[in-house]
Amino acid sequence: MIDLRSDTLTKPTPAMRQAMAEAVVGDDVVDVDPTVEQLQEATAELLGKEAALFMPSGSMANQIAVRVHCDRGSEFLCEADCHIYQYEQAAFAQLSGLVAQTVQGTGGVLQPSQLQGLVRPHNDHMVRTRLVTLENTHNRGGGTIQPLDNVREICRWAADNDLRRHLDGARLWNAVAATGIEAEQWASHFDSVSVCFSKGLGAPVGSALAGTKSFIAEARRARKLFGGGMRQAGIIAAGALYALQHHRQRLVEDHRHAQILQAAVQDSPGLTLGPAAVQTNIVVFFVDPQWGTAAEFVGQLEAAGVRSFAIGAQSVRMVTHLDVTQADVQQAAEVLREVAAASPACDG
Amino acid sequence: MIDLRSDTLTKPTPAMRQAMAEAVVGDDVVDVDPTVEQLQEATAELLGKEAALFMPSGSMANQIAVRVHCDRGSEFLCEADCHIYQYEQAAFAQLSGLVAQTVQGTGGVLQPSQLQGLVRPHNDHMVRTRLVTLENTHNRGGGTIQPLDNVREICRWAADNDLRRHLDGARLWNAVAATGIEAEQWASHFDSVSVCFSKGLGAPVGSALAGTKSFIAEARRARKLFGGGMRQAGIIAAGALYALQHHRQRLVEDHRHAQILQAAVQDSPGLTLGPAAVQTNIVVFFVDPQWGTAAEFVGQLEAAGVRSFAIGAQSVRMVTHLDVTQADVQQAAEVLREVAAASPACDG
Amino acid sequence: MIDLRSDTLTKPTPAMRQAMAEAVVGDDVVDVDPTVEQLQEATAELLGKEAALFMPSGSMANQIAVRVHCDRGSEFLCEADCHIYQYEQAAFAQLSGLVAQTVQGTGGVLQPSQLQGLVRPHNDHMVRTRLVTLENTHNRGGGTIQPLDNVREICRWAADNDLRRHLDGARLWNAVAATGIEAEQWASHFDSVSVCFSKGLGAPVGSALAGTKSFIAEARRARKLFGGGMRQAGIIAAGALYALQHHRQRLVEDHRHAQILQAAVQDSPGLTLGPAAVQTNIVVFFVDPQWGTAAEFVGQLEAAGVRSFAIGAQSVRMVTHLDVTQADVQQAAEVLREVAAASPACDG
Amino acid sequence: MIDLRSDTLTKPTPAMRQAMAEAVVGDDVVDVDPTVEQLQEATAELLGKEAALFMPSGSMANQIAVRVHCDRGSEFLCEADCHIYQYEQAAFAQLSGLVAQTVQGTGGVLQPSQLQGLVRPHNDHMVRTRLVTLENTHNRGGGTIQPLDNVREICRWAADNDLRRHLDGARLWNAVAATGIEAEQWASHFDSVSVCFSKGLGAPVGSALAGTKSFIAEARRARKLFGGGMRQAGIIAAGALYALQHHRQRLVEDHRHAQILQAAVQDSPGLTLGPAAVQTNIVVFFVDPQWGTAAEFVGQLEAAGVRSFAIGAQSVRMVTHLDVTQADVQQAAEVLREVAAASPACDG
Repeated sequence: MIDLRSDTLTKPTPAMRQAMAEAVVGDDVVDVDPTVEQLQEATAELLGKEAALFMPSGSMANQIAVRVHCDRGSEFLCEADCHIYQYEQAAFAQLSGLVAQTVQGTGGVLQPSQLQGLVRPHNDHMVRTRLVTLENTHNRGGGTIQPLDNVREICRWAADNDLRRHLDGARLWNAVAATGIEAEQWASHFDSVSVCFSKGLGAPVGSALAGTKSFIAEARRARKLFGGGMRQAGIIAAGALYALQHHRQRLVEDHRHAQILQAAVQDSPGLTLGPAAVQTNIVVFFVDPQWGTAAEFVGQLEAAGVRSFAIGAQSVRMVTHLDVTQADVQQAAEVLREVAAASPACDG
Repeated sequence: MIDLRSDTLTKPTPAMRQAMAEAVVGDDVVDVDPTVEQLQEATAELLGKEAALFMPSGSMANQIAVRVHCDRGSEFLCEADCHIYQYEQAAFAQLSGLVAQTVQGTGGVLQPSQLQGLVRPHNDHMVRTRLVTLENTHNRGGGTIQPLDNVREICRWAADNDLRRHLDGARLWNAVAATGIEAEQWASHFDSVSVCFSKGLGAPVGSALAGTKSFIAEARRARKLFGGGMRQAGIIAAGALYALQHHRQRLVEDHRHAQILQAAVQDSPGLTLGPAAVQTNIVVFFVDPQWGTAAEFVGQLEAAGVRSFAIGAQSVRMVTHLDVTQADVQQAAEVLREVAAASPACDG
Repeated sequence: MIDLRSDTLTKPTPAMRQAMAEAVVGDDVVDVDPTVEQLQEATAELLGKEAALFMPSGSMANQIAVRVHCDRGSEFLCEADCHIYQYEQAAFAQLSGLVAQTVQGTGGVLQPSQLQGLVRPHNDHMVRTRLVTLENTHNRGGGTIQPLDNVREICRWAADNDLRRHLDGARLWNAVAATGIEAEQWASHFDSVSVCFSKGLGAPVGSALAGTKSFIAEARRARKLFGGGMRQAGIIAAGALYALQHHRQRLVEDHRHAQILQAAVQDSPGLTLGPAAVQTNIVVFFVDPQWGTAAEFVGQLEAAGVRSFAIGAQSVRMVTHLDVTQADVQQAAEVLREVAAASPACDG
Repeated sequence: MIDLRSDTLTKPTPAMRQAMAEAVVGDDVVDVDPTVEQLQEATAELLGKEAALFMPSGSMANQIAVRVHCDRGSEFLCEADCHIYQYEQAAFAQLSGLVAQTVQGTGGVLQPSQLQGLVRPHNDHMVRTRLVTLENTHNRGGGTIQPLDNVREICRWAADNDLRRHLDGARLWNAVAATGIEAEQWASHFDSVSVCFSKGLGAPVGSALAGTKSFIAEARRARKLFGGGMRQAGIIAAGALYALQHHRQRLVEDHRHAQILQAAVQDSPGLTLGPAAVQTNIVVFFVDPQWGTAAEFVGQLEAAGVRSFAIGAQSVRMVTHLDVTQADVQQAAEVLREVAAASPACDG
């Protein structure tokens, strides 16, 4: 089975397992675990931030960032399809009482002009606008890279309006690999950045949140509150550190593989690529209703040995990653062409 | 000074004051205040609901409705410019931990097709969709009346998707006066309805929330939680009851007055009516940036004896009500024409 | 029927009704209602605070005070039987996410020594201690007056520990009438004070919260959030203002009346006064289980024309107020003696 | 350095490391990680529950249990010194809006009679009482074991009053080892139980929550909300599983070691054992103020090579665990005697 459902599915490599088996550890709640500390320092340095904090998940990293930036009675601005708003069970509201003011982008990308006038006036009828978040690359947008000029302009506007800026960089490493623009350069426009070790980089568990020392001190307090304080977390931090040191460069392979899938989508009459051309490791396409539904299409692919996700009534997502080879991807592309060529009724 | 800032500005009439002075009262927290009870019964009957509950404000009525309909971890669908989302300090998030999924309407009006596909699948990544709210007439939309067919279709779709339906009817009485469609008919499509006594009806204080008996029992509990339990509330309920009995029919006068203002806007080159033609007692228009800003325009009007609100950088709102006569409105229309004809620089 | 259930039951006097009927009003949300403003200024002056804010209920006043004093992630210290913890549906937790650290007093009175060591160290495992609240007079304690020396010492300790201090003064007027110590003197030890107009003072609706200007500005914002913004609130503020001006002195009558009831309790073999001797207008006593339950006792009193509240399995509360005369109280004392003298079985 | 600060400090053994290095893993968010599943099944079976869920921390397990048991507007009863109330940053209030009604036990042990009358009547002034929690063994109580008869009686009373029951069993394995009463027997009185793998059992990370299938389904949803969903969590689950299989029996050694420390405390004139005799692996004692403060005492111990925690102004806690041998403990006991014998002034 070739599993293209998500790059979170990657399993630790033998070298990564060895790193974890040999990790020097400590109690990261009582003291600091030395391997966790090493990972945090390496992450902070790559992102050009004062400090970083290891987290059990990217959702926790993002939701804590939003909580720490936004005081009681405030809101953040975000793209309407972003992970923070769509896929994290709205912890910002459920746990922190905050509001998202959403703006519909195109392929996950906002134009700076769309934000004009969205900062609320000070008025007892309204919450206070405090933060802008961006997601790079953008998951639901199909792995799209935020144009650096947009990022720069949006963040400058935000700063001019006394808004904080948070980057959900769960797949920032993909944006770096695809553009050659360093992580630090992307991060320089933001007050805080979350990054993930368990997606493209292939580590088993964990994300990190980076920012100033005082921000990270508050985030550490919030991590305890959320139940994310872990004892000898160095075991998993060792896997993350190995991934950070060895698996960033190879993301370009995943991107090449995604191009192979894109070509198969473009060749297939019943499929339409979208919402944007493939830029990194995510391929999203729409299934023509005449063919059938996305769920049916995904079912046919699975029957032929390829797993993918229906992410909407007619939308399918495929993601390339460390555990799929070029041969796997060529095989998947072949299956995709064959399934698209047959109507589900024919198989019934 | 002719004050067109809001229909909330109305002062109690002598007859209303007399009704309040003579009200039979009791402790509405310990027992039930008889005048409050009479108001609640009259309101429930007009709306065709089992029960109603008096509230100190429309914001409390709406936010309690949303809270009672939506259990922990859920969201409601609403039009992006509605009062519940924009002007109630997001109590739904701050106090109740809920999320608004907003949909941008036109002049405050949603098309049923815009809601297709917005009910979230059951999935641990997502909140659960529980409720749809509509606002009729729509304040920021410019006092627009929701087309009854839209209401019917949206509410049927909601029911088919197991969503509750709440109507913010702060100005439902205006929709009734303007269309001749009875309050009960509008309300029949909803599980709960809030109505206001202190806007067009002219009472000093209060709103009511109506629904089933069990819903109102939960709302009463929430009203205590929010601090809205009031003792001898019959004093103000008497004013509301008087307003309900005597001031619904006369709203057509306010609507005629608004037409006079609309004509003045349409006559004035630097002003554009919008977002919709005047349907009830609210007139919204845009000031041409070449003339100046909305704030400047409002300042000029005030200097000439007419008060209005700048509700955006270039948007002005005027509202007709019980305390402005036809002569007042004609005077205001005259002032509006004069101010529009002069550029602020000329007056400087 | 002589109703001794609560001093919240008082109905407005003719003079108070006239004051309400003639009140000058305005829109207290858009602008400021002049009568509300006058009431706020009079209250602030009596309490020696910079500003005050009218509220629809004492619960809202207290819960907003706690919310504004305590930032996210903090707690307040309070006596375990106080109104804020017991009777306001824990809005501090439900709406504001805060924690009460309770300390069991005696008759509602805390000794300063009981608070030693309760301020939490700064530590990610713990919330931060921010506030101490006291209640004077203490409702569940049986209308007990906090000894001024205790208040002074507790508040000094709180200040030394960087804790804010809030006084729930719902019945502060009773403490003033009973001790001759001015409201301002009591209030001087606190950052904020809530007072009630609808208990002993006899107004139909309303409380106020007093403090610094910046505190009141935040409280006003919170009042909007809670749905407590009311339009022409001057109608009810006029009743409160009248009560404030005319009904404070006469509270000593209520206190004399309570002594009559106390004597009847002390005379009755099956009853025990408690938790403290009567100091103001509240009489609490325990019914000997051999006689029966508090609910049964209250039922017998009611059958004989006297209403009271069972506030525990064996506890009964009676409250004297503006609407019960000396003759009423003597009659109630007589009934109380008779009921206590008979066992419920006899009446069965 | 002999580190007796906590049993959370234990580092994975070589065999445990090997189990982690070889763990079969999967994506526990998208699918189920097979090793996590194996751990969950083993835990559920040991506790006699339908299902269990792996968690990154015991705090998350407890706080999610409280959240799932208690609907909006409710409270739980707990012992005043318990971990859930004291040491988890009150997530129950901060994140879930719930209230703790605390009852002061003796050495962490509640008597059933103390709970009589604490279930609140149904009344709009009050939250609803929903849950009782117990902690076994009790951390702040000094590792005390809840008497089984008390547990049985409290839980029967709770069930009779429609209250749910949750056991914080972070150190339940110690209670089992000390008493010979099986985990399943302790757990049988509760609706849910949390257990920890990273304290006495010595695993690097993780706890589990056990209960019915439907309870665990809701807990899984809440774990996503809190950010506790981890991908290839089988790596750390393998360590926990190894610990569960191999390290429960040996806890009796830790208990024997604690007796050695207890003896040293009892021999030392300036120290008093408390709040209870040592029953498991925790030793708490008070430092006579004449000797100095707990912080000073801990400092002296550390200077002599033994680490412990000051848990109060005069209280010190020592915990025995997998990483301290009998020789270590004898050495620590010796140091303790020496430090107690000298006054800090002598060392100055």
